Amino acid sequence: MEWLETDTSNCSIGRTLELVGRPWTFLVLREAFQGIRRFDQLQRHLGVSRPVLSQRLNQLVGAGLLERARYQEPGSRPRDEYRLTGKGGDLYPVLLALLQWGDAYVADPGGPATEVRHRDCGRRVRVAMVCEDGHEVESLQQLESHPGPGARARAI
Amino acid sequence: MEWLETDTSNCSIGRTLELVGRPWTFLVLREAFQGIRRFDQLQRHLGVSRPVLSQRLNQLVGAGLLERARYQEPGSRPRDEYRLTGKGGDLYPVLLALLQWGDAYVADPGGPATEVRHRDCGRRVRVAMVCEDGHEVESLQQLESHPGPGARARAI
Repeated sequence: MEWLETDTSNCSIGRTLELVGRPWTFLVLREAFQGIRRFDQLQRHLGVSRPVLSQRLNQLVGAGLLERARYQEPGSRPRDEYRLTGKGGDLYPVLLALLQWGDAYVADPGGPATEVRHRDCGRRVRVAMVCEDGHEVESLQQLESHPGPGARARAI
Repeated sequence: MEWLETDTSNCSIGRTLELVGRPWTFLVLREAFQGIRRFDQLQRHLGVSRPVLSQRLNQLVGAGLLERARYQEPGSRPRDEYRLTGKGGDLYPVLLALLQWGDAYVADPGGPATEVRHRDCGRRVRVAMVCEDGHEVESLQQLESHPGPGARARAI
């Protein structure tokens, strides 16, 4: 089956983008990966209105990427904070790939605003494409795309 | 500088999402990575109207991710096709990371619709997070985020 003959309605990229394909999704996830969990902090750092943030958080909770957890500070009423789920955390390679591309093409001349490092050794972390035999793939010419077991033919 | 004290206006993630943070961007790029370059083929496979596709292609050309190249088939007038630039091609790890996450969480029970393989050895290719010392980072707990040289403090 050639690519143009495939039905793309079950494409994992398309389905993923339905969940996370808005610019704000990764901005909220960026904050979550930085450990920012509280509504007021998210709202101030993202610079969005409370109703907009509230709606976005609801969507991310609905998609299973964040989950609510109760907390209470002395003298305050109980509030919800927002924690990454495992499903949300697994989006980190997407975020790192966006960061890496952005550092290469759109960073300020002074350099990247954020660096991600390996905690054990302190060295910078990047996204790499690696095959099951452990080869790093550095060129697109070394990649081949094939229909997988779930591929479906397109109605003509 | 703590994360909440940083000004995120030069964040490479945010800037990248300004360029590519619409769901359709990666759908057009997906076709381009599959070698689909011609307007009619893109239009049919993506299932969008001609004016919408035309506008999207203009945006991707404007952002430097695709470039136009003339071609002419016998008996037809010259037409433009759309080729990935190096800048566009460097987005492949983002696409592969989206595919990988989607295969894990939203694929059909029958399995992935598309498989990406290493041309030399035929094994499947995945995105990995690797540090400069060559360690693969498998857990988010092994990652640390630091302000980089371009970090700016936020106005309070």
